[in-house]
Amino acid sequence: MPHIDVQNDLPGIRSLMAFRPETAKPLNELAEILLHDTTGLSRTERELIATYVSYLNDCFYCHNSHGEIACYYLAGDRALVNQVKENYLIAPISDKLKALLQIASKVQQSGKAVTPADVDNARKHGATDRDIHDTVLIAAAFCMFNRYVDGLAADTPTDLSTYPPRAKQVAECGYGSHIYAGKQPV
Amino acid sequence: MPHIDVQNDLPGIRSLMAFRPETAKPLNELAEILLHDTTGLSRTERELIATYVSYLNDCFYCHNSHGEIACYYLAGDRALVNQVKENYLIAPISDKLKALLQIASKVQQSGKAVTPADVDNARKHGATDRDIHDTVLIAAAFCMFNRYVDGLAADTPTDLSTYPPRAKQVAECGYGSHIYAGKQPV
Repeated sequence: MPHIDVQNDLPGIRSLMAFRPETAKPLNELAEILLHDTTGLSRTERELIATYVSYLNDCFYCHNSHGEIACYYLAGDRALVNQVKENYLIAPISDKLKALLQIASKVQQSGKAVTPADVDNARKHGATDRDIHDTVLIAAAFCMFNRYVDGLAADTPTDLSTYPPRAKQVAECGYGSHIYAGKQPV
Repeated sequence: MPHIDVQNDLPGIRSLMAFRPETAKPLNELAEILLHDTTGLSRTERELIATYVSYLNDCFYCHNSHGEIACYYLAGDRALVNQVKENYLIAPISDKLKALLQIASKVQQSGKAVTPADVDNARKHGATDRDIHDTVLIAAAFCMFNRYVDGLAADTPTDLSTYPPRAKQVAECGYGSHIYAGKQPV
């Protein structure tokens, strides 16, 4: 049961967004730019970074929601998503993404944990300044989203079959403000 | 020196916002609603929560920037701001704000650290569901802002005399998008 009366029965962050639509608007806009943009990092890479940070923060709702979106982009390869969560170093992903996940894991601990060597390594594998910027901000943003969801004890579906339909909707239509309110996308 | 070439010499988060204006827009809108709103929690309470979380995250730029804004609202009472940072339990602030700072300190550790007893205590001292929501989201948001600033090693002025003029500007004009670009507010 959530710590506050959210006056709806939506799952996870959607219940909080419906409770406080004023803050939902910029939160959705931020998610749309960070996760649905295709300049530089791919949508798959962006969602895998979000998933991994949420997994490190042990946020069940977020790592399953975003893991399913990544899975959708990966044509259903859930095994790869799980490998990234559990040990990305041995996952069949690019060295560039491994270097960015290393930066993201440092940000999850503390911004100060990121070293020039971490950044140089990402650059060596082809990451641009914008890729590094977006990785740090995605990781930082999920340190917010995860705390928002769990800090208010938002209701979290434990039935994993409920996540894929929603993931498909977000993957295809984005993080538009029409979504959090539970309306069908146009 | 920042980890990426931000192509400007603005301080702290402003340098990152000028580098990536697309994400700056929702970030500023979020800050405006969470910190400059006056419904429920006061601006002083909101800035003190932001300052305290930034202090716990050891983000020099953020705890000094937001500490100075709180100080401006408190008619220059910097001693009170410092007391909140160092030990809010003995600061001359309301029991309600103490209970909310307790929740914020839990969110800084992890969303899961917030207990029903923490929330009940805040409610007992007059906090509404919206106050509790905003406290959790302010604390969570500063876990993002702090990591964004330090994760990219944004330039941080160590000369504390540079913070009050900027604090006055933000306190009086808000977190509008005209500010991060270094333009004068209208």
